[in-house]
Amino acid sequence: MLKIVVDAMGGDNAPAEIVKGAVQALDARKDFKLILTGDENFVKPELEKYKYDTSRVELVHCTEVITNDDVPTSAVRGKKDSSLVVGMRMLKEDEEVGGFVSAGSTGAVLTGGIMLVGRIKGVLRPALCPALPNVRGTQTLLCDCGANAECKPAYLQQFAIMASAYAKAAFGVENPRVGLLTNGTEEHKGDTLHQEAHQLLKTCEGIDFAGNIEGRDIMYGDVDVAVSDGFSGNVALKAIEGCGKTVSAVLKKEFTSSFGAKLHYLFAKKQLSGLQNMLDYSRFGGSVFLGLKKVVVKSHGSSKAKSICASVAQAVDAYRNNLIGNISELLEKTQISGEENA
Amino acid sequence: MLKIVVDAMGGDNAPAEIVKGAVQALDARKDFKLILTGDENFVKPELEKYKYDTSRVELVHCTEVITNDDVPTSAVRGKKDSSLVVGMRMLKEDEEVGGFVSAGSTGAVLTGGIMLVGRIKGVLRPALCPALPNVRGTQTLLCDCGANAECKPAYLQQFAIMASAYAKAAFGVENPRVGLLTNGTEEHKGDTLHQEAHQLLKTCEGIDFAGNIEGRDIMYGDVDVAVSDGFSGNVALKAIEGCGKTVSAVLKKEFTSSFGAKLHYLFAKKQLSGLQNMLDYSRFGGSVFLGLKKVVVKSHGSSKAKSICASVAQAVDAYRNNLIGNISELLEKTQISGEENA
Repeated sequence: MLKIVVDAMGGDNAPAEIVKGAVQALDARKDFKLILTGDENFVKPELEKYKYDTSRVELVHCTEVITNDDVPTSAVRGKKDSSLVVGMRMLKEDEEVGGFVSAGSTGAVLTGGIMLVGRIKGVLRPALCPALPNVRGTQTLLCDCGANAECKPAYLQQFAIMASAYAKAAFGVENPRVGLLTNGTEEHKGDTLHQEAHQLLKTCEGIDFAGNIEGRDIMYGDVDVAVSDGFSGNVALKAIEGCGKTVSAVLKKEFTSSFGAKLHYLFAKKQLSGLQNMLDYSRFGGSVFLGLKKVVVKSHGSSKAKSICASVAQAVDAYRNNLIGNISELLEKTQISGEENA
Repeated sequence: MLKIVVDAMGGDNAPAEIVKGAVQALDARKDFKLILTGDENFVKPELEKYKYDTSRVELVHCTEVITNDDVPTSAVRGKKDSSLVVGMRMLKEDEEVGGFVSAGSTGAVLTGGIMLVGRIKGVLRPALCPALPNVRGTQTLLCDCGANAECKPAYLQQFAIMASAYAKAAFGVENPRVGLLTNGTEEHKGDTLHQEAHQLLKTCEGIDFAGNIEGRDIMYGDVDVAVSDGFSGNVALKAIEGCGKTVSAVLKKEFTSSFGAKLHYLFAKKQLSGLQNMLDYSRFGGSVFLGLKKVVVKSHGSSKAKSICASVAQAVDAYRNNLIGNISELLEKTQISGEENA
């Protein structure tokens, strides 16, 4: 049976919320076994809070934890008994393990992914790819959103290919439309990197390139994939996150400013929850780290149970829908040199 | 008396909304004269719709218009009788003219600003600087947000200096806090450009550098100035704009989905307008083009009267608060080579 490993010690709310979310995922998807990696002194008491099918859950004890203060490379090398390293090793070595989920240090997940799990043949740079809500009620993939601060045009071309494969595998989009995130829609817009990437994407077989898009288009939903360098993709992702949180804060302030306002809230509650739910992209899970030999999902550092549950379901679906195979196949088709490793 | 020139033909809603907004500004600020540049066959009938002090308004007839389809450089050189070129020439040549406002082609405003108005001595690259609302109820300046897609570290340092001078002049912030927009708060984050810019900012006299900030911090209001390269600044600005519009669209959908929902809207109307007003940054006017010898305000292409009125008031205030003098002074203090023109 398919196994999914969850790093029970990673994230601001570990292990309590991680364990809670992972157990919830057992209900959401019936076709996998859960492996939790972490210190049993902390994880076991959390597990004992819930009722679940014990035959579907395994706890692998490990003594170390990688934190945000650790330097990723030395932590992945040095902390061999950490929940992250132990989990990723299982992902690499155990054929039945199809996916790994962590809300821990982004740097460590990226480094561990490349060092321990390894890249698909031909992949120049793996990339983080979250799904964002859009006004159409579907989701837009943003790739890369932070794994690669410095990019070359060929990386961006591969991000387009990998995210297209993901849109197909995860959401069943037949011909995902791909936009290149720049500072204007005209073809000549952007810096040299994006101008050159535009030319590569224009002639790239196997993807449906819709041209340049702007920051606002990410949430308008006209494209299924927004391709960006990891620097500006990260800025865009967090700008949207900040705007969403600001909206929530302002609404809260407005609707608690007086007794009358609180009363009005009761009337508007249902509609406002509709908005909150739309803005809450934790329901989509985390960012898939595309380009690795196996499925790795990086959940937000502040993930609560709901988000972890979604991330585990996401890992199950990505595995079941053959994400890795789809990426390999599309990469081969598009004939990007697999040798170039720059 | 101070004169402000408004390009009556620039923008999606020209000349109707431009003229309307400019006339409204006559009420908002009593201490200036308005000069409108544009084709009198179109502008005069618009002007005649309103009552205003005719001694404070002058219409300068010109026969040409620069559109978004024009190539900026050749348009600024070739269309000598366009509302933009005529207006910018007046700004340069007439000592009484203190500011220029246009909602026309961004490229033409930038090119015209540099070619016709000219840079302050020592300025490497002028930069677009809009004010965004933040959750604290104040505003955060984002500089550069699109004038320079390719940047060098020294440009970013100057953006910090110029925007600090603007925060002082426009909003009376005594010691504006400056953050560098990157993909993480740690000092080593970002690409080479931002890592080098961080080092320059850290040791730069005359500004209060708070370190790296992320996209989400733009709206949290912990800094008064967010410094960015024009590429990712533009992506961030438009991502926030898109998120705001998405929120409005979702709220509209939620509150019109049924008769009951429409009824609920009546109760929540006041609070929701509070949110809409907060997100509507057209109330702050346009983006000031910092680094020129005189005040140039670029209003959003889709500006309506309200935004034009705010932009004109913004130009008046920037002039009155000696924005240009403050920038020159701060640049001299910080001893960035005025000769380097790279």
